[in-house]
Amino acid sequence: MAVDGKDQSHLEQGIHTNHAGRLHRDRRPRTSLSELSPCHQCGVWVTHFQRLFVTLVGADWIFLMILGFIMAVLSFVMDLFVTLLTDAHRWIYDISDSHVFLQYFAWVAYSMILMCFAAGFASIVSPQAVGSGIPEMKTALRGVVLPEYLTFRTLVSKVISLTCVLGSELPVGKEGPFVHIGSMCAVLLCKFMSLFSGIYKNEARNKEMLTVGCAVGIGCCFASPIGGVLFSMEVTSRFFVAPNYWRGFLSAAFGSVIFRLLAVWHGEEETLTALYATKYRLDFPFDLQELPAFAAMGIVCGLGGAFFVFLYGKITLFVKKQKAMNSFLMKNVFLYSALVSVLVSTLTFPPGFGQFMAGKLTQRESLISFFDNRTWSNHCIMADFEDDDHLAAWKHPQANVFIILTIFILMKFWMSALSITLPIPCGSFVPIFVIGAGFGRLVGEGMATLFPEGINTDGHIYHIVPGAYAVVGAAALTAGVTHTFSTGVIMMELTGQINYILPILISVILANMVSQSLQPSIYDTVIRIKKLPYLPLLRWGHRVKCNIHVEDFMERDVRYVTLNSTYRDINRILRSGNLKMLPVVKSAESMLLLGSVERAQLLALLKQRAQDRRGGLVPSMPCSYRVHFQTSTEESSSTSSSAHPDSSKPLKPVLKKSAVDEEEITNPYDSGISLKLCCSRPDIDALQDYPDAEDDTILQEIEEWEEPQLDEQVNFNNCKIDPAPFQLVEGTSLHKTHTMFSVLNLDYAYITGIGRLIGVVSLKELRKAIEGFLPADGVRLRPILASFRDRGVRGARIETAELHKLLDHQAS
Amino acid sequence: MAVDGKDQSHLEQGIHTNHAGRLHRDRRPRTSLSELSPCHQCGVWVTHFQRLFVTLVGADWIFLMILGFIMAVLSFVMDLFVTLLTDAHRWIYDISDSHVFLQYFAWVAYSMILMCFAAGFASIVSPQAVGSGIPEMKTALRGVVLPEYLTFRTLVSKVISLTCVLGSELPVGKEGPFVHIGSMCAVLLCKFMSLFSGIYKNEARNKEMLTVGCAVGIGCCFASPIGGVLFSMEVTSRFFVAPNYWRGFLSAAFGSVIFRLLAVWHGEEETLTALYATKYRLDFPFDLQELPAFAAMGIVCGLGGAFFVFLYGKITLFVKKQKAMNSFLMKNVFLYSALVSVLVSTLTFPPGFGQFMAGKLTQRESLISFFDNRTWSNHCIMADFEDDDHLAAWKHPQANVFIILTIFILMKFWMSALSITLPIPCGSFVPIFVIGAGFGRLVGEGMATLFPEGINTDGHIYHIVPGAYAVVGAAALTAGVTHTFSTGVIMMELTGQINYILPILISVILANMVSQSLQPSIYDTVIRIKKLPYLPLLRWGHRVKCNIHVEDFMERDVRYVTLNSTYRDINRILRSGNLKMLPVVKSAESMLLLGSVERAQLLALLKQRAQDRRGGLVPSMPCSYRVHFQTSTEESSSTSSSAHPDSSKPLKPVLKKSAVDEEEITNPYDSGISLKLCCSRPDIDALQDYPDAEDDTILQEIEEWEEPQLDEQVNFNNCKIDPAPFQLVEGTSLHKTHTMFSVLNLDYAYITGIGRLIGVVSLKELRKAIEGFLPADGVRLRPILASFRDRGVRGARIETAELHKLLDHQAS
Repeated sequence: MAVDGKDQSHLEQGIHTNHAGRLHRDRRPRTSLSELSPCHQCGVWVTHFQRLFVTLVGADWIFLMILGFIMAVLSFVMDLFVTLLTDAHRWIYDISDSHVFLQYFAWVAYSMILMCFAAGFASIVSPQAVGSGIPEMKTALRGVVLPEYLTFRTLVSKVISLTCVLGSELPVGKEGPFVHIGSMCAVLLCKFMSLFSGIYKNEARNKEMLTVGCAVGIGCCFASPIGGVLFSMEVTSRFFVAPNYWRGFLSAAFGSVIFRLLAVWHGEEETLTALYATKYRLDFPFDLQELPAFAAMGIVCGLGGAFFVFLYGKITLFVKKQKAMNSFLMKNVFLYSALVSVLVSTLTFPPGFGQFMAGKLTQRESLISFFDNRTWSNHCIMADFEDDDHLAAWKHPQANVFIILTIFILMKFWMSALSITLPIPCGSFVPIFVIGAGFGRLVGEGMATLFPEGINTDGHIYHIVPGAYAVVGAAALTAGVTHTFSTGVIMMELTGQINYILPILISVILANMVSQSLQPSIYDTVIRIKKLPYLPLLRWGHRVKCNIHVEDFMERDVRYVTLNSTYRDINRILRSGNLKMLPVVKSAESMLLLGSVERAQLLALLKQRAQDRRGGLVPSMPCSYRVHFQTSTEESSSTSSSAHPDSSKPLKPVLKKSAVDEEEITNPYDSGISLKLCCSRPDIDALQDYPDAEDDTILQEIEEWEEPQLDEQVNFNNCKIDPAPFQLVEGTSLHKTHTMFSVLNLDYAYITGIGRLIGVVSLKELRKAIEGFLPADGVRLRPILASFRDRGVRGARIETAELHKLLDHQAS
Repeated sequence: MAVDGKDQSHLEQGIHTNHAGRLHRDRRPRTSLSELSPCHQCGVWVTHFQRLFVTLVGADWIFLMILGFIMAVLSFVMDLFVTLLTDAHRWIYDISDSHVFLQYFAWVAYSMILMCFAAGFASIVSPQAVGSGIPEMKTALRGVVLPEYLTFRTLVSKVISLTCVLGSELPVGKEGPFVHIGSMCAVLLCKFMSLFSGIYKNEARNKEMLTVGCAVGIGCCFASPIGGVLFSMEVTSRFFVAPNYWRGFLSAAFGSVIFRLLAVWHGEEETLTALYATKYRLDFPFDLQELPAFAAMGIVCGLGGAFFVFLYGKITLFVKKQKAMNSFLMKNVFLYSALVSVLVSTLTFPPGFGQFMAGKLTQRESLISFFDNRTWSNHCIMADFEDDDHLAAWKHPQANVFIILTIFILMKFWMSALSITLPIPCGSFVPIFVIGAGFGRLVGEGMATLFPEGINTDGHIYHIVPGAYAVVGAAALTAGVTHTFSTGVIMMELTGQINYILPILISVILANMVSQSLQPSIYDTVIRIKKLPYLPLLRWGHRVKCNIHVEDFMERDVRYVTLNSTYRDINRILRSGNLKMLPVVKSAESMLLLGSVERAQLLALLKQRAQDRRGGLVPSMPCSYRVHFQTSTEESSSTSSSAHPDSSKPLKPVLKKSAVDEEEITNPYDSGISLKLCCSRPDIDALQDYPDAEDDTILQEIEEWEEPQLDEQVNFNNCKIDPAPFQLVEGTSLHKTHTMFSVLNLDYAYITGIGRLIGVVSLKELRKAIEGFLPADGVRLRPILASFRDRGVRGARIETAELHKLLDHQAS
């Protein structure tokens, strides 16, 4: 095939597809779709459509939108089923009103059966579905993905059990599990998409998508994209690049739109509005003199949040202890769940004690009633409550609204703390939310009673809005339990009103200050109790002495190239694995690390030698040039290659889908940083270093050489060597290593001792080391950069060793 | 002084103050104020009050609140003065209504004089005050603080000129300058606070505070704490730890509260509300069928944003070119400003062309009118406009509202692009905001005319709300120009309504997608045009070949300790500087780096030797133990020391304020990570390694030894050596070095070549290297982690060298 004008135009565009079907790209700063039109002279004929399809499938925004869509549908459908289940509960309860015991039995048994089913289903299908999921995701995002934690099986188990649990009206929530579900969806979608595009085989990229999954999970739960992104950022507390959050943002925003659109199409709403839309007055939201009340609420909520975490911890530890004694309970997962379910539903039985705590309301109904615009303590208003089913539940002939609210708060408090210890999928966010809203409503009603005419005295009468107190209380208590600030944002998006932003912020900040000084967050507590493999970083006091260093877990069997390697050696090394980069040492004796060399460069050296053997001598050229020279002369179209020395490395055809699973270490493309939404990545597939058929031929051919030629020393003189591959000293601690790997997005690092290469550490080894290192008393939690902060700081101890030990070690 | 029961209780608390006034603390995970009660046996008697004062001054939240308060007051006072100036403008205009030329003269001259004053003041007092400030802050947060950029002089210059510029009614904004002002306030406040607490001498901490300054600047401008934090994160695009944003959050929230409180106290507002509070209906904000219109607006705004950036770039380059030719313009900074001012105010002159573009409205008034709830194109409503001064400006007997809006948008577009090129402090955010709102209003009015009865046909009639289109348009156009997503959040906080969240998000995302694919953001454009020392990272195509490696800028004159150092050597090294850590090499010949040793350890060795000389032999103990042993035996209270081997390093008294300015390299305490709001840092001051009078005495004493003793070899056998100080290979590129320093918060790194210590790089050297490296054609912008992503990726080139060069280099 001749080089025609079309080809020339490709060259001008900076793209050239050579005859082996490889795509050469001048590294232009910006690529557009138009640059991707294929060259029809290729050996592999790729249609426009196929190419466009791959580009689209590989584009981030498509993935993000699909993810958002799936999560929105999942969230909506789950909500539908939960509503169905609770309606059925009410229906059974209503038709069995012939006798109160029958009614009680119906009320309790329904919940119990659902609970037992949920617990059983979760334990049989996938026990990994149990719990909130946020602590586990936090662990996963720090680098340790728990086994079986992100599988389809777990997804099914989690979704179905969660629906049943929510249907049984236990005071648990769905946002924590939705973080987990979002991540599972992201991972499974990545796996599915990898059938079409190699970009999804990239581990670093998939890790980014895990973060997005967390954000979209929250976003689709509450239809709060901004709050969802911030919450997932805060809760999973990962390092990240600031502008990078657009991914989560895009996905969560799209998910929220779809989630609310579904509600419109289903006829629940007239248009896109907030999930718990409130209608407080806009002109005068609150009086300045109410601010101290909001601040006081923040402090009390902080205390309450800390106490909730404390209570949860105590209950969990108590249950664990009991379980250890009582083998019966241990054997039978149903029993504990059934007991708690019976206890809770007995107490909420509407004709029984439930009448004093609005027992017949679901969590959603409670929230709607708390956020109501009217003042409950005002008796004139209270009279109209009969019309409204939700509000009527708060009205009792014997008890006033304050007593009922107090009972509600106290009962729900321990019930929630108890419920989230059960072996079922359950989140703590929504129950805390409800309790906080109840507390806020209580304070608000108190304020309304204290100041029936409002506080402001000049001119207008502005009544107190107790519903706003409920909003503030919900945000503050949740902030106290989760130690996040974004609950305030979630609250605003949830209610669709932002004019209480300043009271919300004040109380959220105060709640955080108080609770953070008293207790770790609920998620950190779970991590500690469950002893999850969260990287246990050192505390200032060196209570847990970490004496694992990189030399203890590095891979000592390194394949390396020496300056006096023979062709036989190189051939052996290249055949024994497909690491993209190989270390170059001075000699096998000294092992002094000189740098690293690309596999491709070595292959080129071999090819050149093979060529020399076959034909005449080729003038000495830098081997990266030669690679191209070889390929192009073989196909007799050297014109194009000379024009592009920069783009001379052969890349793989876009649609190639060879097996790359074993190449776990070396996929360093981290897609997580660029802000360019529209920058498609046409050659992303080519970044993977596939074992190549052509290369194999070369290696095969070389093996058939006669002995003397094989024992010839390779001339590396013109080889391009990276003089500064990432190196770590052997004494680097596990923590430092982990921090560097996670912060710098490393895939591997060479380990050196006094300049000598002694090992290599990849993500795999590091992961194993972390998983293997779990102190008996659970883990310590610490900010990720802390080990660097300590360095050289007198207050903290540096990991030191006595000199003689150091010298002994090096001598050995 | 005897060791009494009180002392014992201190020991149990984990704190012990020894007799030299040094505070020993067992490194407990959590410290509380109660642990800080001083020990009255101390040499330096510290009162409770002083200690509390230092603790409070050193506490983050105090600093953050003071900063928020200052910024709020500054913002409010500036707004007051601007209102005063514009009112004066109107007054002069009104009283000179006897003749239209007089009126014109008054209108134009007023603006011109203010502009000339602003330009002159800025150029005379501090030319660093010119421009927006965001690009410069972006540079500063990447590591290069421009000279004179954060001084008090610049602050004064910026505040005063900005007030005048805003008073002259040029279409420029104050948010960009406020980012700069916020940072200056943060730095100056740090300097001021450092008089009271040593913690403010920490460079890393102050850098964190710079980020906070950016956030609080935006927060106090718009009373939008959340949007402010997000915007400053996005715009300065730094690496950061997710939970770390509470600092900016706290400061911005407090600042916003104060900013709005001041408005209440001043009588402008009745209570805390949003700055441009809107009152759109809550029950049915928009119809689903309006979503395509919002999406289309997003796309158009994206195009518009890109065009604005393009226009700005063209104007700037044109003016630069003209300036180069026209020496007159260059000499006279006033002339260009005056010309533009005359041009703009001529066009906005209300009786002249200004009548077709609502020329008499200020930017604030325009915004208020755009966000108005009423529909302008409805003639019945239009009739009432006479009552409202702002809306009357949009009514013209000859032209309808569409024509006026179109003229307004077109004129303001080029005026804004022109104005922000002037040598005055000016931001582009608000003018863009106004243009976007105008465009939104235009679309909204169009929609209202197209669908006079609203779109929804089933039952209720919901009219189109053109004001909401203005809100969406403002967010989208600003997003298109700044390439941020947080403009949507700012918009919601600014208007106090969140129910348009989904349209806003959709249009903001689309605007970003479109404009990012066409043009860099306005801030990146400024960085490129101004050729700011922003770290110019390599692009994929290696267009700018960066061949600066760490060896080219490292400090080669390293002070090191060898294994056969004599006491004389150690003494010399210790006296020659006060680096906290010193490298240990095997021998001066081999220079093999073994690790690093603390200065304190070496001092202890010397002290021990001095002790040995004076008294008898002391049994060999690890020297860190010995340090304490020595100090405590000298003061005869060894009981306490033996109990606390961990806390045995002498720390400095809390109130000590000796000069530490020269110790630039070694202050690695990075306070930026911990989420613990309430964790006060009592011993932070002690973390600095001050040159110590006692140490000096020891060093002095040793110098007086006789020769043979001085030439004795030091026995390092039991010295604690950090086996893994941070090391870089000599061939590491400038980019990689910078990335590692900024990401890992390093202060210094040893440079090794094949295990041999050949230099050291500290922040200072790195900064110099970056400042010295500026390619002629401005800088390339690239995500900070990109150099790591490229490593080993075939698509990108690794920085390589030919082997023979490498070997030659190492041989030399």
